[in-house]
Amino acid sequence: MPKILLNWVPTQSDFELIRNTLPDAEFEVPPWQNLEEAEILLYSPKTPDLDALIPNMKNLRFIQSLMAGVDHLPWSLIPDNVIVASGSGANSEAVADMALALALSALKFIPFYQNEMRMDLWKRRVSKDLDSLTAVILGTGSIGKAIARRLKAFGMRVVGVSRSGNQAEDFDNVASSADWSSEPYGDLIVIALPLNRDSYHMIDKDVLSRLGGTRVIVNIARAAIVEPQALKVWLQENPTSVYASDVWWNEKLSLQPVIVEQHISISYLPNVIMTPHTAGLTEYAQERMLTMACENILRFLEGLQPSGIVRKEDYSQTPWNEN
Amino acid sequence: MPKILLNWVPTQSDFELIRNTLPDAEFEVPPWQNLEEAEILLYSPKTPDLDALIPNMKNLRFIQSLMAGVDHLPWSLIPDNVIVASGSGANSEAVADMALALALSALKFIPFYQNEMRMDLWKRRVSKDLDSLTAVILGTGSIGKAIARRLKAFGMRVVGVSRSGNQAEDFDNVASSADWSSEPYGDLIVIALPLNRDSYHMIDKDVLSRLGGTRVIVNIARAAIVEPQALKVWLQENPTSVYASDVWWNEKLSLQPVIVEQHISISYLPNVIMTPHTAGLTEYAQERMLTMACENILRFLEGLQPSGIVRKEDYSQTPWNEN
Repeated sequence: MPKILLNWVPTQSDFELIRNTLPDAEFEVPPWQNLEEAEILLYSPKTPDLDALIPNMKNLRFIQSLMAGVDHLPWSLIPDNVIVASGSGANSEAVADMALALALSALKFIPFYQNEMRMDLWKRRVSKDLDSLTAVILGTGSIGKAIARRLKAFGMRVVGVSRSGNQAEDFDNVASSADWSSEPYGDLIVIALPLNRDSYHMIDKDVLSRLGGTRVIVNIARAAIVEPQALKVWLQENPTSVYASDVWWNEKLSLQPVIVEQHISISYLPNVIMTPHTAGLTEYAQERMLTMACENILRFLEGLQPSGIVRKEDYSQTPWNEN
Repeated sequence: MPKILLNWVPTQSDFELIRNTLPDAEFEVPPWQNLEEAEILLYSPKTPDLDALIPNMKNLRFIQSLMAGVDHLPWSLIPDNVIVASGSGANSEAVADMALALALSALKFIPFYQNEMRMDLWKRRVSKDLDSLTAVILGTGSIGKAIARRLKAFGMRVVGVSRSGNQAEDFDNVASSADWSSEPYGDLIVIALPLNRDSYHMIDKDVLSRLGGTRVIVNIARAAIVEPQALKVWLQENPTSVYASDVWWNEKLSLQPVIVEQHISISYLPNVIMTPHTAGLTEYAQERMLTMACENILRFLEGLQPSGIVRKEDYSQTPWNEN
């Protein structure tokens, strides 16, 4: 009978859902009685401090994250033999919806018009025909694919960018990160990558200066994929470009430890559109995340390959941790 | 050799485009020398005062509007034998893009978040899963269809509403206006109808009071399809509903004569999203409108059926004209 440790106290309905999906398991919830017996950790970032927990879980074999992003796990403390699976896929549709909301808001100037109209200012701008644009999606995972499907409905040419550059469904073409970074292009660039060693500060001064022009950059992934000081300069030098983001370097929620950068007030630039890390916060996304995480644990317990297994080398000696 | 009268002075490049599409025609541009000879009026709403013009065009047979909406024509002055064609279809894709930008902004709270974040307020809301929503599109013409295609990419159930209720491509179902008005529903309602006798004040107190609840209404058609006093009450009574509109009763552009209603400050309600009638104002839409209008004139001249012929009875004794 495997024992599953939860690092948070679930609501009654959430706990019912967990037990219904994993009827044969035993559970250990805070305050934990016995850390040693648990073989599995079901991890919610709501209580991100795992530093004291993981070293005492002597029988830990598998960590299942509720969320797609696993950058906030204390990677240096996780033993080599422990498999880590991300919650990838659970809220892809919701996150893709937010990516489109940010992209269209920027391309059609919605929040800028809103504020002008409130001041009784009738100031019309010529916007782009969306079917004349090339969108570049950094990341061709389940979120990237969900974004691509939506953008195609607007008649855009959609290019994916991934480490391999392997072609993928729903994209007109896929380029490799190395190729795209050395010659960046795209009228609309959507960041849909996990934050890891390769993607950290991928959008830096070099990429941005070569990009130039009138562009919209949407970020629904992690702030630290963008180097904030370079972004600030680029936004100041390209006033017709827009950065529309759901994620921030100094987030005011405990989802993510406050990362590396000191606070930089990008938020006061006129060409920035901001939402408070809310893409995944939909009516059904939480339940779906929990269900999919439990189903993945079931897969692990049945000796099948869990989905979303994380390549640990992507998270070793990452610049946003002190290890 | 047919003579075509333009009611505005085109730019040089526009005039070249017109002459290239209609190489055999003669043109009469302001200041007009001879109103009597022109058989065709190519009409741009940029100079909307046709009242002095039309009665003097003794040989007028055909009016081609650049724009899809023809509600601003001086209908009472147009003789019965004159055919009127709308510019329907020319900027459908651009208008549908704006409809989606407004809908997603409202459903994902973008302009509200934007203003809160600027005030350093981190206030997260639970949003709807778009694939759980039913969208109702009032109008199943080329704009309605273009909106439907886009909404399907978000997994919504999409219902069209038209006078006939005849089924149409890209819609999961089509209801008749009469049926929908008596039992209105839809999480997202997009107004994509021409303003005419039937649609004037179609969204009135009765419809809104039966609708209730948490809804998003998007208007990219004409303001006067909505009765503003009833809308105001409904928005005040349903603070979680949002009205997101590109069109206004008191527009500050000469596109549309100021219509019936006195100014009502809906714009100061918190649950309103506003853009300044800018849906069709894209890089290529103007050129496309001109090309399609000229091609339709060519069709008329060749004795073929022009597209977009307007049913004149829809515009007789309309409540927004004094006739």
